[in-house]
Amino acid sequence: MTRVTVGEHPRRREDVLAVEEPLEVRLGGSAYVVTMRTPGHDLQLALGYLVSEGVVTRHEHVAGAILCASDGAPNTYNVLDVTLAPDVVVPEPRRAAPMTSACGVCGTASIDDVRTRSAFRVADDPLRVTAALLATFPDTLRASQAAFERTGGLHAAALFEAATGRMLVLREDVGRHNAVDKVIGWALQEDRLPLAGTVLMVSGRASFELVQKALMAGIPMLAAVSAPSSLAVELADEAGLTLVGFLRGESMVVYAHPERVADREGNAA
Amino acid sequence: MTRVTVGEHPRRREDVLAVEEPLEVRLGGSAYVVTMRTPGHDLQLALGYLVSEGVVTRHEHVAGAILCASDGAPNTYNVLDVTLAPDVVVPEPRRAAPMTSACGVCGTASIDDVRTRSAFRVADDPLRVTAALLATFPDTLRASQAAFERTGGLHAAALFEAATGRMLVLREDVGRHNAVDKVIGWALQEDRLPLAGTVLMVSGRASFELVQKALMAGIPMLAAVSAPSSLAVELADEAGLTLVGFLRGESMVVYAHPERVADREGNAA
Repeated sequence: MTRVTVGEHPRRREDVLAVEEPLEVRLGGSAYVVTMRTPGHDLQLALGYLVSEGVVTRHEHVAGAILCASDGAPNTYNVLDVTLAPDVVVPEPRRAAPMTSACGVCGTASIDDVRTRSAFRVADDPLRVTAALLATFPDTLRASQAAFERTGGLHAAALFEAATGRMLVLREDVGRHNAVDKVIGWALQEDRLPLAGTVLMVSGRASFELVQKALMAGIPMLAAVSAPSSLAVELADEAGLTLVGFLRGESMVVYAHPERVADREGNAA
Repeated sequence: MTRVTVGEHPRRREDVLAVEEPLEVRLGGSAYVVTMRTPGHDLQLALGYLVSEGVVTRHEHVAGAILCASDGAPNTYNVLDVTLAPDVVVPEPRRAAPMTSACGVCGTASIDDVRTRSAFRVADDPLRVTAALLATFPDTLRASQAAFERTGGLHAAALFEAATGRMLVLREDVGRHNAVDKVIGWALQEDRLPLAGTVLMVSGRASFELVQKALMAGIPMLAAVSAPSSLAVELADEAGLTLVGFLRGESMVVYAHPERVADREGNAA
């Protein structure tokens, strides 16, 4: 690559890039989904995706997984074949276009869909975190982010234990949804679902999709460095998830269910 | 929402959020794709997506489009039915999992796929831009961004005419790919494809998918405020697209085909 500054001579130099490669997930030999991801923790990515889609909720639901053998061609380590337990219903391959019968695709229908599919209920999770503790999460996350400083191109997602503020796991990816899936896949492997009493922290913005993933894994609080979208707030509000945005320095904005964010005396925001 | 600052009393206030709603695109009445997007310029979004998928390349390829009538239910304005011209091959609904026969899904295969599908070739585009002119694009983009300052949650994509530095169109969306599709859909409506002699500028990072969209629309240069991914650079390199990252202030990093970036004397970087 070449660094160009107006009025100066261009300088050639080596640069470190965030790696992006396709991963094809198969279920019992049949193609299920392809995602562009940063290689690493691929099994956790696949498992987390399956949790997000409502296919599995416990580690016993997964019988095994192999990096697909190469039919003569060199193995690219980009195909992962997951075998589900016999009692798990194998879903149809995901379509980009779910067939809806009515003309009414809308935010409300999308919210209802998540509520119908999730095996867990976060609304009653008694989790409570002080604002002071929440404010420490971004620094912990950044301090642990191995790749971001070098590439400027990776999203991070991390899971914190609310009672102690301890970071349980951190994952990075070019795609923010992949980083979250890797975290959830880790939790499935550890058989920690539902993730009661935890906070999911993401480095970017909070979209509908990320709130959906948190709910499918039973996580009662999502905190983001940047802004949420309107539908993310609506879903969080209806499903009982605490949604925090703009978590920077000493301040944050609570968009839904502020009763879980307490001051030093334990009073809810 | 509630603003919480450690050690201070929480303050309630109204906030402006980036709107996110699902859009279902149908082709001739059949579901094709659903995307989460910021409402506005929905037809351009649908058309740009169809260009990106290699379905259409000219405005005559589209016979018409309607916001789907509501079968009794209230119209949510979230379903758009596009009618293609009789000679256009209607594709199968997009699957999240394209069926691959071999085990070799990899970056190279993804790159070959884009090269096979694109109707346009950017490698021979004689476009040349001075670094000084490129350096003006981010300010122009930011000055025109209506929503970002208020919500902090929208991505922007804009198309610049390389000869003059004039911004031709700017679109915003919660999804960076949607913002780019809206720009390309605008160009299809104006029958400007291939977009020779233009630069696509995006507010965030440059992924494989964005380089792919630029190539499908015949755009020879993509400039991003942040980092590109490794596969974005590989695709740009192989397809002859100039890829610029970290375009901020007076400086930028050229990751592929720097011959199109010139200094004030017209010498290539």
